Amino acid sequence: MDKILRINMSVNGKPEAKVHPLGDYAGLGGRGLTSAIVSKEVPPLCHPLGEDNKLVIAPGLLSGSAAAMSGRISVGCKSPLTGGIKEANSGGQAAQVMARLGYAAIILEGLPENDKLYKIVINKDGVQFHEDNTLKMLGNYDTVDRIKSEFGDKVACISIGQAGEMKLGSASIAFTNMEFRPTRHAGRGGVGAVMGSKGVKVIVIDDAGMKMRSPKDPEKFKAANRQFVAGLKKHPVTGEGLPAYGTNVLTNVVNEAGGLPTNNFKAGRFEGAPKVSGEALADMIKERGGNPTHGCHRGCVIRCSGIFHDELGNYLTKQPEYETVWSHGPNCGIDDLDTIAILDRMDDDFGVDTVEMGATIGVAMDAGLAEFGDKEAAINLVKEVGKGTPLGRILGSGAGITGKVFGVERVPVVKNQAMPAYDPRAVKGMGVTYATTTMGADHTAGYCVTANLLSVGGTIDPLSPQGQVELSRNLQIATAAIDSTGMCLFIAFAILDQEETFNALVDLINAFSGLSLTGDDVSELGKTVLKVEREFNRQAGFTEKDDRLPDYFLKESLPPHGVTFNVTDAELDSVFNF
Amino acid sequence: MDKILRINMSVNGKPEAKVHPLGDYAGLGGRGLTSAIVSKEVPPLCHPLGEDNKLVIAPGLLSGSAAAMSGRISVGCKSPLTGGIKEANSGGQAAQVMARLGYAAIILEGLPENDKLYKIVINKDGVQFHEDNTLKMLGNYDTVDRIKSEFGDKVACISIGQAGEMKLGSASIAFTNMEFRPTRHAGRGGVGAVMGSKGVKVIVIDDAGMKMRSPKDPEKFKAANRQFVAGLKKHPVTGEGLPAYGTNVLTNVVNEAGGLPTNNFKAGRFEGAPKVSGEALADMIKERGGNPTHGCHRGCVIRCSGIFHDELGNYLTKQPEYETVWSHGPNCGIDDLDTIAILDRMDDDFGVDTVEMGATIGVAMDAGLAEFGDKEAAINLVKEVGKGTPLGRILGSGAGITGKVFGVERVPVVKNQAMPAYDPRAVKGMGVTYATTTMGADHTAGYCVTANLLSVGGTIDPLSPQGQVELSRNLQIATAAIDSTGMCLFIAFAILDQEETFNALVDLINAFSGLSLTGDDVSELGKTVLKVEREFNRQAGFTEKDDRLPDYFLKESLPPHGVTFNVTDAELDSVFNF
Repeated sequence: MDKILRINMSVNGKPEAKVHPLGDYAGLGGRGLTSAIVSKEVPPLCHPLGEDNKLVIAPGLLSGSAAAMSGRISVGCKSPLTGGIKEANSGGQAAQVMARLGYAAIILEGLPENDKLYKIVINKDGVQFHEDNTLKMLGNYDTVDRIKSEFGDKVACISIGQAGEMKLGSASIAFTNMEFRPTRHAGRGGVGAVMGSKGVKVIVIDDAGMKMRSPKDPEKFKAANRQFVAGLKKHPVTGEGLPAYGTNVLTNVVNEAGGLPTNNFKAGRFEGAPKVSGEALADMIKERGGNPTHGCHRGCVIRCSGIFHDELGNYLTKQPEYETVWSHGPNCGIDDLDTIAILDRMDDDFGVDTVEMGATIGVAMDAGLAEFGDKEAAINLVKEVGKGTPLGRILGSGAGITGKVFGVERVPVVKNQAMPAYDPRAVKGMGVTYATTTMGADHTAGYCVTANLLSVGGTIDPLSPQGQVELSRNLQIATAAIDSTGMCLFIAFAILDQEETFNALVDLINAFSGLSLTGDDVSELGKTVLKVEREFNRQAGFTEKDDRLPDYFLKESLPPHGVTFNVTDAELDSVFNF
Repeated sequence: MDKILRINMSVNGKPEAKVHPLGDYAGLGGRGLTSAIVSKEVPPLCHPLGEDNKLVIAPGLLSGSAAAMSGRISVGCKSPLTGGIKEANSGGQAAQVMARLGYAAIILEGLPENDKLYKIVINKDGVQFHEDNTLKMLGNYDTVDRIKSEFGDKVACISIGQAGEMKLGSASIAFTNMEFRPTRHAGRGGVGAVMGSKGVKVIVIDDAGMKMRSPKDPEKFKAANRQFVAGLKKHPVTGEGLPAYGTNVLTNVVNEAGGLPTNNFKAGRFEGAPKVSGEALADMIKERGGNPTHGCHRGCVIRCSGIFHDELGNYLTKQPEYETVWSHGPNCGIDDLDTIAILDRMDDDFGVDTVEMGATIGVAMDAGLAEFGDKEAAINLVKEVGKGTPLGRILGSGAGITGKVFGVERVPVVKNQAMPAYDPRAVKGMGVTYATTTMGADHTAGYCVTANLLSVGGTIDPLSPQGQVELSRNLQIATAAIDSTGMCLFIAFAILDQEETFNALVDLINAFSGLSLTGDDVSELGKTVLKVEREFNRQAGFTEKDDRLPDYFLKESLPPHGVTFNVTDAELDSVFNF
């Protein structure tokens, strides 16, 4: 995995692929690599949909090896949604397959001629480009079916739906899972719009004939991996909660804590929460012959994803994630899992970020386009996105633009990206992360739910401003490092609480790479990634004024705890003091 | 004119008016006053449609007096379009009428309860509020007709159309002219959306029983006014060009210079320009019994506005301004004055900025919503705004949002406000003003067409970057001062070229106010206004990165001269070095 595949979409009118050595980027993977490339090669003031933006797809440092949990992939670019740097992270099979082909990154550059739409096939023999306008405005499911009929289901697909082709701000990039379904998404920040602007509908990656990547020290690697897996199995979150109920195990927890944003962030507790909880979802899935305990990529031992069947027992979609259940459920006053699953399926098919989409529907409901709780109206609104009507384009452009077009003041965004499933007033650590991360409001960037609600890595009162900045800072640093390894972020639960599991991870990296990193080195890597990202954003025009929540979170008190967001501006400005 | 009328739209659920002394704001008028109030009283990070924003309406220092040209009015707020400070300037009768009632400013504050819509009546006896939901979603023409039937046509109206009620980013505020038609607009920056958010449909101002404001030194005032008027009459632009052909005298001039943005800024010369020129327009107006030489307010001696009749000889709209002719004409490939006049009428009626609207239609045409040159399609697109359809709301939100929703890269905006009728590559002084003014792309903020194309106030090659920064700086300072006097900006042509006319203006101000200002004091006033505005924007998160043109202007060469915008970033950053 020591080469970069650069694809320029128009060299004398035709796309062209060239393989380059990693060069200056050696030693980087995942988010570390995407952010380094974007930062070095993309002009911060360029138009996100223009020829100067680049879409960088990079597996992690350990991807393609036998290391457990190493199948995450990073997608980087200048974001059409935030205008800043973006790394969106996904599961699925592509990380492993790309890594086995030896590619540390694929970079899409330039713009195609005349709105041409391409299928790109990458295998051990090289790269082929097929202009294929019959793929135009297909959903991800149909696109992947077409690929399956041509290539079988052993390849991996990276594709966009209608939203990406329309270059909408909420457009995601889909990655096929183990069953060759387009259910794993680099969701946030409109990365699918950048892929759409490059004229790439789908990238087919075929690792036939290639082998698993082998570690420098196979024995040490094997031992470290064994201990790492044992640590994950031992921890109650990664060993019990997530496998049994998926990420939606959080609905009851966050609702109980009064931090579940309800009806477009008007309350922190939702009466219908138990009906859409992880427990209810797992029961329903089992009853219908689905599977609530399933990995999003091979090598996953936590297995928090799952397979959702409809009432007739037929496959409908993946088990909706907590953030999806929340965004289309409580955030819109909806307490029906079947409705949420239909919306999840549509989001995956059209290729939109489920967090942004649900938050947008909440804003649309505040604008009077539908009543909170109206399931059918919510479904009809999302359908508009797939149709590409003017209304669908507004909604697909995200919560910020929807708020502007409909004159709504209460729009829960930071850097124009919608907040996820934790009200920042009642889970203040998350508020600090939303405000300050380079990514726009994002939960994964520094997941303070750990110490705020789960007593993982310590305990910090979620309702108090005390300690939240330090918590968020440390988690943002750790996350930037983990996102560079290709490891699933959920390993954080175990490595924060169990020193031996953290050490096993460091051993795993060292045994694989032949390096002698320490825990401090990992932390330094995280800091470097964040600094690079902050500097890109600064050059793109961001200031500390962009590290703020919308002012209504500071003024409007949230039931049931009656809290506002009261971490001071000065405290927020100290997050990156390292 | 020593008091401020503060109207809070909800004090215990009801609107309430209070009269305050000018206090700290004494000595300020027009833009100087609106920017001082916004800067001091509006939190820079507040939501523009929220309760913390304020809408400030202020006549100039000389408004309501017998001084010629003193009927301009300033509207200030935090702009929903740019997110920065905004002063939008209009003609019409309101400035004189308000000034005679003694109000230096009306400030709308707070938010009404439950989407109530108000008519506010202000006269010598005080302020009355009438909740009147029958006005909902009326155009400005119908609104003004309703007021006329109730109050006659001697009052002045300040109103919003459908766009303001929908809180769209291009919504303007209409001011009635001498014939009681809603044809003069504070157009830019979405000020109408702020009035809409305050729940105010129309303000009726009645100065019955009030007298003209009298100067401290009547004799000196009279003499200065006489000399000032003589100077305006003598100058070829204010004495001949503007009265004969209106502002549209510029179409042939700018087209000849290769700076007339054509087909969404793809060329600088338009084949059909002669068909829509000021000369052609004046001929058509005279033929049909309209009037091409008419003031926008009483006391105007330049009389560049006019009255446009349709083919049957019936009133249709005001004589379209140059920027309107351009935005709906050449910028959309349209060479038909009747089409442009219909669009002008619709813009005034719905209450949208004609510059933003035409630029938006150009972007929509690039998005494929219509062909360049398709007159009927342009009319139909603007009709959508009045209907409030999703498409209409997108378009009414301005060029920036339209570009985002439809995935268009070439969007001619700075700080999200559309560029007016001068391509910044071929009229580089205007490019400097677009990039650096506090207002977002705006021609009136520092009108470098003077020395760039008209040899007024000197001659500076429009195609060269040399000297443009100094030119723009000086004009931005002078403009900020003129905008504070209530004087029409067009006096600048005469005062830049004729020292005795400038001195007459200073004498006029001194004779009226009893002060002893010098030319330097006027310049200092302008600098102070700009500094206050820059500081507001800085606190709202603006940096030097916001003082840039979209990057395609730096890369894409403009026919016929084959020029790009090549004033350096460092030069742009030196504009405010004073």
